[in-house]
Amino acid sequence: MIDRLDLPTSIRTRDATVLVRRATLEDLQAIIELLSDDPISAGRGDIASDEDRPAYAAALNRIIDDPGNELLVVSRDEAVVGTLQLTVIPGMARRGSTRLLIEAVRVASTERSSGIGSALMRWVVERAAIDVEAALVQLTSDAAREDAHRFYRRLGFVDSHVGFKFQVTLPASTAR
Amino acid sequence: MIDRLDLPTSIRTRDATVLVRRATLEDLQAIIELLSDDPISAGRGDIASDEDRPAYAAALNRIIDDPGNELLVVSRDEAVVGTLQLTVIPGMARRGSTRLLIEAVRVASTERSSGIGSALMRWVVERAAIDVEAALVQLTSDAAREDAHRFYRRLGFVDSHVGFKFQVTLPASTAR
Repeated sequence: MIDRLDLPTSIRTRDATVLVRRATLEDLQAIIELLSDDPISAGRGDIASDEDRPAYAAALNRIIDDPGNELLVVSRDEAVVGTLQLTVIPGMARRGSTRLLIEAVRVASTERSSGIGSALMRWVVERAAIDVEAALVQLTSDAAREDAHRFYRRLGFVDSHVGFKFQVTLPASTAR
Repeated sequence: MIDRLDLPTSIRTRDATVLVRRATLEDLQAIIELLSDDPISAGRGDIASDEDRPAYAAALNRIIDDPGNELLVVSRDEAVVGTLQLTVIPGMARRGSTRLLIEAVRVASTERSSGIGSALMRWVVERAAIDVEAALVQLTSDAAREDAHRFYRRLGFVDSHVGFKFQVTLPASTAR
């Protein structure tokens, strides 16, 4: 279903045109750096350390191989300046609606306020959701990210829900 | 990955043993009734009307066919008394952690306070998450469901996030 996304595609930001495309293993380092370029993520362990590289590579391969998931990158002049993950979730509620879940939205700190984030989100709700026939787009945002909340509200997202997380302690033998 | 769930399985509630198993098309009517047996869901259109049955059946088939999704039912003495959906989501954040998303948790109104909900959630975080190697279990709950929020906090879930939804208007030609 996620293969119906019409990619790569060009999207217009306020003052530039950027490319949205599927991530490949060649984007691994750029994605790791985007994740660590954020204090909240860094606080959860995403610090771009060399020893975590195999875990990130395995995760990227799992996403690429998963028919319901897609990791996207945004590039400008060949440089990766943003990333986000989309998951298509079939569901029973709301009369059998399919949902499109957005996770791990990151825009390079040098590019914030360039309009890339809002152009990307508009593409998700106006184009990607239609491509995959999702009647609902959803995401959660850390309660501390107040600027992000204002950003999502401006785009028409409604903060109707509370997001709960439960940290699982996996057995040491588990390959993450 | 979701096929690693060790099902069917028996779980103990306060005063009974119930069975958790994968849903089949034969459970369709019971699941539709559980969805409508809830004022918030009913307010979103889940009213168990006959004309919506084909949309629910199509959705159940999509979930059954999806390798990342599983719709579960809880049965007691052969009667379906609860349902929930699980989605395994590979991810880059938190050093490449896989997540387990819980959606559409419903317990029959006649069975609430029987302990089925908490037994089911404990099974998700203590057993299902380990089976699918998920380091994080997550869900969102409508801001109006204050009893549910207390319930999730008691189980160890942390309400660290804000859940945003965006309603998409799909073209009329789209089969939902």
